[in-house]
Amino acid sequence: MHVVTFQPEGKTVQVEAGELLSDAAVRAGVRLAMPCGNQGRCGRCLIRIETGEVRRRENAHLSPERVTQGWALACQTEVLGDVTVAIPPQRLRETLVASKTTRRAPLKAGPAAAVDPWVRKVCLELPPPSLEDNVSDWDRTKRGLEAADGTDGVEVDLPVLRTLAGQLRAADWKATATLGYRPHPRTPSPRAERGYGGEVLLRLEAGDTSRRLLGAAVDIGTTTVACGLVDLRTGELLETAAEYNDQISCGEDVISRIIYSRQGGGEGLHHLQRLAVETINRVLGEACQRRGVHPAEIADVVVAGNTTMTHLFLGLDPQHLRMEPYTPTASQYPLIRAEEVGLATHPQASVWAYPTVAAYVGGDITSGVISSGQFRADKLTLFMDVGTNGEIVLGNADWLATCACSAGPAFEGAGVRCGMRATTGAIEDVTISTRTLEPTIKVLGNARPAGVCGSGMIAALAEMFVTGIVDRQGRIDVPRVQARMATPQRLRQGEHGAEYVLAWASESETLEDIYLTEVDINNLIRTKGAIYAGITSLVNSVGLSLDDVEQVLIGGSFGQHIDVEEAIRIGLLPDLPWDRFKFLGNTSLLGAYQALVSRDVRSWAEEIARKMTYLELIADNRFMGEYTSAMFLPHTDLDAFPSVKRQLLELAGTTGS
Amino acid sequence: MHVVTFQPEGKTVQVEAGELLSDAAVRAGVRLAMPCGNQGRCGRCLIRIETGEVRRRENAHLSPERVTQGWALACQTEVLGDVTVAIPPQRLRETLVASKTTRRAPLKAGPAAAVDPWVRKVCLELPPPSLEDNVSDWDRTKRGLEAADGTDGVEVDLPVLRTLAGQLRAADWKATATLGYRPHPRTPSPRAERGYGGEVLLRLEAGDTSRRLLGAAVDIGTTTVACGLVDLRTGELLETAAEYNDQISCGEDVISRIIYSRQGGGEGLHHLQRLAVETINRVLGEACQRRGVHPAEIADVVVAGNTTMTHLFLGLDPQHLRMEPYTPTASQYPLIRAEEVGLATHPQASVWAYPTVAAYVGGDITSGVISSGQFRADKLTLFMDVGTNGEIVLGNADWLATCACSAGPAFEGAGVRCGMRATTGAIEDVTISTRTLEPTIKVLGNARPAGVCGSGMIAALAEMFVTGIVDRQGRIDVPRVQARMATPQRLRQGEHGAEYVLAWASESETLEDIYLTEVDINNLIRTKGAIYAGITSLVNSVGLSLDDVEQVLIGGSFGQHIDVEEAIRIGLLPDLPWDRFKFLGNTSLLGAYQALVSRDVRSWAEEIARKMTYLELIADNRFMGEYTSAMFLPHTDLDAFPSVKRQLLELAGTTGS
Repeated sequence: MHVVTFQPEGKTVQVEAGELLSDAAVRAGVRLAMPCGNQGRCGRCLIRIETGEVRRRENAHLSPERVTQGWALACQTEVLGDVTVAIPPQRLRETLVASKTTRRAPLKAGPAAAVDPWVRKVCLELPPPSLEDNVSDWDRTKRGLEAADGTDGVEVDLPVLRTLAGQLRAADWKATATLGYRPHPRTPSPRAERGYGGEVLLRLEAGDTSRRLLGAAVDIGTTTVACGLVDLRTGELLETAAEYNDQISCGEDVISRIIYSRQGGGEGLHHLQRLAVETINRVLGEACQRRGVHPAEIADVVVAGNTTMTHLFLGLDPQHLRMEPYTPTASQYPLIRAEEVGLATHPQASVWAYPTVAAYVGGDITSGVISSGQFRADKLTLFMDVGTNGEIVLGNADWLATCACSAGPAFEGAGVRCGMRATTGAIEDVTISTRTLEPTIKVLGNARPAGVCGSGMIAALAEMFVTGIVDRQGRIDVPRVQARMATPQRLRQGEHGAEYVLAWASESETLEDIYLTEVDINNLIRTKGAIYAGITSLVNSVGLSLDDVEQVLIGGSFGQHIDVEEAIRIGLLPDLPWDRFKFLGNTSLLGAYQALVSRDVRSWAEEIARKMTYLELIADNRFMGEYTSAMFLPHTDLDAFPSVKRQLLELAGTTGS
Repeated sequence: MHVVTFQPEGKTVQVEAGELLSDAAVRAGVRLAMPCGNQGRCGRCLIRIETGEVRRRENAHLSPERVTQGWALACQTEVLGDVTVAIPPQRLRETLVASKTTRRAPLKAGPAAAVDPWVRKVCLELPPPSLEDNVSDWDRTKRGLEAADGTDGVEVDLPVLRTLAGQLRAADWKATATLGYRPHPRTPSPRAERGYGGEVLLRLEAGDTSRRLLGAAVDIGTTTVACGLVDLRTGELLETAAEYNDQISCGEDVISRIIYSRQGGGEGLHHLQRLAVETINRVLGEACQRRGVHPAEIADVVVAGNTTMTHLFLGLDPQHLRMEPYTPTASQYPLIRAEEVGLATHPQASVWAYPTVAAYVGGDITSGVISSGQFRADKLTLFMDVGTNGEIVLGNADWLATCACSAGPAFEGAGVRCGMRATTGAIEDVTISTRTLEPTIKVLGNARPAGVCGSGMIAALAEMFVTGIVDRQGRIDVPRVQARMATPQRLRQGEHGAEYVLAWASESETLEDIYLTEVDINNLIRTKGAIYAGITSLVNSVGLSLDDVEQVLIGGSFGQHIDVEEAIRIGLLPDLPWDRFKFLGNTSLLGAYQALVSRDVRSWAEEIARKMTYLELIADNRFMGEYTSAMFLPHTDLDAFPSVKRQLLELAGTTGS
């Protein structure tokens, strides 16, 4: 056995010879970012060996100098003796920080319909049994429910029935019942004229606890899990909390997670299921702690997530989502009990998952269509959620069509050399002087820059484009641009083509230059091109044109950071008047909240998901043409972007080029 | 560690010093009868120490001579060294033998309604997914169901959904779905005009398996568990099998079991629950083996049992059944899945338990009211199930009233010195010569007598009464009777009053005399008196008299062995014309079978159990009076038994007394 010490935290762990440093880190409780799922692909688990003997399996992502300096990938390095390892700060898995998100679009927690939750409480005062009246405890309970407010036909499941006799007596026959609805096969369970119908007893508590009835709305994002704690009596959103999804250690994007899920004959799926639930439990625990309540008080849960996240949360095998023809196991999910998946709420809490539309149009999108109001809009509306994938919904109260473009995770920091997520240290905005071609950067969280996040990339690319550093094909003519620069060394040839330095090593948290390469730019153009081509294909598929779109509603975590002007400049968003764009923040969480406080919303969501027309872009002939046309800045057809064309002409006049 | 060897089977087991022989027997797989639940009360676990050292905790039930001979109670004897133990054959827990039961009343497996089971199979041939048609696997399955026969609104639970994707692909999209109904809160789930409603997918199999659909009907008796294996397509009863309930090792009657269930803070309940299920699994396994099918093929189960058995099977705490005011946890039970209780059928098989009426009027009675046809009889009908308890139902198609008399287990062999259950070696019939007062006995299973079973006790008592050995108070005037006897030593004074020997030690399997004592007779009179008083109290409670009863239907295991004439002679059954009595055999199992093959029967049963009027005898003033009057042979009021009166007068003439 050897000892591995992780600095700067000083955590230690005993390991067998030959064990991987990444495994040691997990056991030591060191939260190292391992987005590619320990496959040595992403290079994010970079650490430095301070002392001790190791064996490197491979050194991809590492120059010979860096190897000499002791750098290694934790997931490719075996321990051969006592080892001390240093982890650079930005390699630790980030915790969420206040960002543009909370400033720009706080969760506006308005219910979409009258507050009418899926669960309710009924207070009971039962006459104790006697020889003259010795009906069963359950019959007595049902009689009490009927006496209280006419509720009849209530059912009970075995786990609750098993505790009933003891609980009623411990409560001295004064108790509060929590009732939840049964799922409804076809039509929503209607409240009968007299009382309710189709309910089940979820929980019995001693005394009158009818003033406490809590629910949880959960957005299971690939990157971030966000929860809202809700008072179901009033519909009030009490708390919100968020954390990174623990599944990130098994892969950064959904494809890596699906691949990981196949490990060990189902063991991978089981592990991912548990990680999702553990993350939710942690986030719920945090929200509950702030309110001084216990998660076991939560009697109802709504989750919204993309199709892969929903599958993983429920323990459904996601592998067919990844392979043509991309089929989910289900699009409407059974109403389950919390204990079936391991949530730390009340074990009998009812858990409803937002229905999904297709493999890459998930419950987060259905939720967004609800919470954005698109489903009852008069105006022709384009709803977008741009994250790792780009999902687009077109329509209004009368019809809805949707598609998904595999945009790739460039905007979330992957596939971009100095990319990172929008957390402390991320360059979130860039302006470049047309005169000196010198950048001015804005960093998240009052810190030294550590990388560039999606909004920073868009801003940088837009600025590099309008200032002429990058041409319409995304190429950089280094000598020609250097000639215009105040600091020519800011532009240089590197391994991945030309590099434009946004921040020097001396200013940065990582002590390395932060820059964009031509390869990065090419990735960004492919990403924005896929999204734009998705939009145009979808709009054209229904015989409309972009000009017909009356409003563009943008949801999702990344969407919140986009600057419309910059996004139009690079051709990510269509060139429409700016006042048609609205940024809505976490529409998935908001929709989960709305479904939590209203049974009607759930029925609407099920209907919307069922009726939405899904356009499979891969099977759509238009798409490849649109995509090819969109592989320019902003587009092959500059006339499709009149505002950009005008700006370019103006700038050409200014710089005289 | 010591070694214990059990003879004659030769089974051995290693034990710690101080371990009880009864525990050693369980671990050795020796099926020793331990009715009192190892409390040293019943004396049934009698064994003989052949060699080796033991310590006896107590010697109740053993004379000093027997102790000298090496006899000991397994549950009161600790092992101190290597020990060889001999078990007398009749002490091994009996396996069921053919008896009067099968001769007199085989299970007449006629359905009570049209065959229309709770589960059904639908064969699916699904078009494989393609890019043009990539709906979810579950949507595809539902589409297939709708295409097959218009079935819509089918639901699925998470465990089945988790295997769906893999199963459909392994089956190459040709599969057979097993569908079961959801429970219906108030009204039976009607088959909608178009297809069915409220169904759930229980199972998916590759290929076309629609020709195989099995169900199991289970009667969970306190003593015996009987099962029927049923072809649900045709309603045919394929096999029946029965075994003693493994719970007998924890107590012979329901009260002992309820006490046992409190052991170890719920551990006892858990143990009893498991024993019930293990017994059912064994019996089902036997029935399935005979047909060459696997129990996992069974998709639907109906159980009928008394209220305690139903509670124990479901894992519901039975303790309040034993204490005033005798309340069950429930009288209608949730529809569960087999895996919730551990049945070896298909884990998703639906399990429905017959509803109970009160703590001592259980699902076996509701089942009997169905299968006896009482619930739709025109005639005023008395239905009786006499076992450990006596349950009585009075009524017809228009109304039903019921009560339970705690008859005690005398007829099942407990509380009677030489009592035993109706298995091999039991004296099942006795005639006594009026001239010599010598008995002629009939033994079950072509064996030497080992004890007396219930029907033998009734016959012996009736004969002893009409021949004048026993007077109307149940007393024996020894000198006076001996004077009339050919073998006066057959009547003697013993520890428990006078003893009448039915079989001598030299003729018996146990090498002991088999006899009835005055104490035994007193127990029998109290038992029959309780039942008769129950009948009269119930009849009177609705303002009727016994003469109004147009038919008496007798169900249950003990009921099958009763001889009407003898039962009337001792005043167990009312003195009605013999043609009004019908013996129906295992009405509980038959009702379970009928509910298995017909959904209507389940609805009827739920309605019957709900509407049946329950008379609580303990709270009924009439009952004590009736009981006191019934504490004679046949009754205080001899005019209530005209046929017995006539017979006594005739015999008085014959014997000249």
